[in-house]
Amino acid sequence: MLHMQAEIGEQPEAIRRLLCEEGAQIARVAAALRARQPAVLLLVARGTSDNAATYAKYLFGLVNHTIVALAAPSLTTVYGASLNLAQAAVIGISQSGESTDVVEVMRQAGQAGALTIGLTNNAASPLAASVQYPLLLHAGEEKALPATKTYTASLAALAMLAAHLAGDKRLLEALAALPEALHAVLELEPIMAEAAARFRHIERCVSLARGVNYATALEAALKLKETCYLSAEPYSTADFMHGPIAVVEEDFPALLFAPPGRAQPVMEEMAQALARRRAASLIVARSPDLLRLAALPVAMPVDVDELLTPIVYIVPAQFFALHLAQAKGFDPDAPRGLHKVTRTR
Amino acid sequence: MLHMQAEIGEQPEAIRRLLCEEGAQIARVAAALRARQPAVLLLVARGTSDNAATYAKYLFGLVNHTIVALAAPSLTTVYGASLNLAQAAVIGISQSGESTDVVEVMRQAGQAGALTIGLTNNAASPLAASVQYPLLLHAGEEKALPATKTYTASLAALAMLAAHLAGDKRLLEALAALPEALHAVLELEPIMAEAAARFRHIERCVSLARGVNYATALEAALKLKETCYLSAEPYSTADFMHGPIAVVEEDFPALLFAPPGRAQPVMEEMAQALARRRAASLIVARSPDLLRLAALPVAMPVDVDELLTPIVYIVPAQFFALHLAQAKGFDPDAPRGLHKVTRTR
Repeated sequence: MLHMQAEIGEQPEAIRRLLCEEGAQIARVAAALRARQPAVLLLVARGTSDNAATYAKYLFGLVNHTIVALAAPSLTTVYGASLNLAQAAVIGISQSGESTDVVEVMRQAGQAGALTIGLTNNAASPLAASVQYPLLLHAGEEKALPATKTYTASLAALAMLAAHLAGDKRLLEALAALPEALHAVLELEPIMAEAAARFRHIERCVSLARGVNYATALEAALKLKETCYLSAEPYSTADFMHGPIAVVEEDFPALLFAPPGRAQPVMEEMAQALARRRAASLIVARSPDLLRLAALPVAMPVDVDELLTPIVYIVPAQFFALHLAQAKGFDPDAPRGLHKVTRTR
Repeated sequence: MLHMQAEIGEQPEAIRRLLCEEGAQIARVAAALRARQPAVLLLVARGTSDNAATYAKYLFGLVNHTIVALAAPSLTTVYGASLNLAQAAVIGISQSGESTDVVEVMRQAGQAGALTIGLTNNAASPLAASVQYPLLLHAGEEKALPATKTYTASLAALAMLAAHLAGDKRLLEALAALPEALHAVLELEPIMAEAAARFRHIERCVSLARGVNYATALEAALKLKETCYLSAEPYSTADFMHGPIAVVEEDFPALLFAPPGRAQPVMEEMAQALARRRAASLIVARSPDLLRLAALPVAMPVDVDELLTPIVYIVPAQFFALHLAQAKGFDPDAPRGLHKVTRTR
């Protein structure tokens, strides 16, 4: 079995470990954050972890009414700029904990007096050592180069932090139900393998979502770029609708992530617009009305809290990237050009 | 003459009007901001204006040491979330001033007690009416659908605000020299028309930069998508280097924006990596070493302050999009799917 395939399958267990083993530490960090009342959370990340940071923008906005800024690491590493962080808390995310630019920004943020939190899968990493509050992902060793289980673990850790910070019991209960939901979603693998076979000749596609699942659109596109070298362009439907939709002709491949919730109506308008253009839409959804608009419907077998849907709806996209790479004759475990540890200035 | 072509040519005069006619108002807004000392600037924008907001992230970080967050308008318009904005100043950007979601977010930000600033080309617009401090772009009526002169005017207005806020005389002087620099850059049109003829068969490309010009990479890609329906993917070189660079084979088209300054060394590494892969690099730069690495060198005829390079380096990309659209038989004044006023939820 491929490493990527095995690691997609490990996600229910990884999230279960995270929930059991990091809950107490996350509650402590939430208490420190509550005492500090930061005016803004600054997220520092690259690549897959940057997509987790985009999730944080919606999450902390909705649950905690807090502004989230995504850092431009170049400000520190290229320009040596120092930001005024006195009223900020800074959260770095790096699965390996070795991303040199993320670690550098975190180190400087700590020196500047910010409360610093580091999410990483590696307790012995420079990131863990550079922050006041390390949070461990407990996802187990990651052997495939494309990150899967560390992405969903990062999202779940952020959701745990937001829930503890707000004292949101409903969200904590919804988190406890995640491993079971993820387990059920693993059943979609044969459907996604079939979808990959059908889409095997595509060289470009768009990846669309709205609201909390904008992160899902970004991460699905990144996985397809990393493993299949596609031109996969992610968009919020708001940005796609007026302009870029012009690229869509008959049979143009489009992935849509449209779970039940407050973003579903705008996703349905998007699906209708694509159906009118006879696009080849792969729609991941629960709603029968939405699924009927798809060239390739992917019916999700579970209901989860809307805030947590990004943790579950990315899984079929991970399977799709895995099988599309294989259908195209690529090795998804070792994509050309991808390195486990990112060392950029 | 096409509207888009005329409007690219109007940029020196538009910036001159902005500098003359809006300086006093921008100084007043800067004084109000200084009195408020916001912990974070929240930028609210869509499309081209969102690229101006990305410029603001680097600009206010470098000049004012201030954290900049880019708003997710969906938080307000889809979820009805309210952010804690007590320590924030909120800047909305919309050339038409009619983007419904931007206006809605600004209105709610004002009600929540934030200091609100609105950049728009239309003094009679809902955006201007919804904020405490309207700032006018003075770019003149925009008739082409792809925004050119309102983009550079937005960048210049933001730079004026940052300079006044910091009392940065050097930057104010550099701003005063912009119209002349822009005038010189208009001379590049024949070179870009030739480049477009040579690239006329491309269907995808990447657009690369680093630091303050990350906004230039984003905006160049957006113009190519809007006018030529290309898959044009913008990247920070830090993100492109480890992973997506795998897409680059011989003759793969890549646009690089690499002005003199602190980001130039990393851009030179990028240009070398692309040269090794025999990519078709169109490089916009001053450095002869960098230009030698290009399949298609575009030598910039002027030196401007690094912070203001995005206002000047986007101009050849505007010409390239204009002429590539024409070479492909499209009408750049009226791209399919693009509307002057964006009304999205």
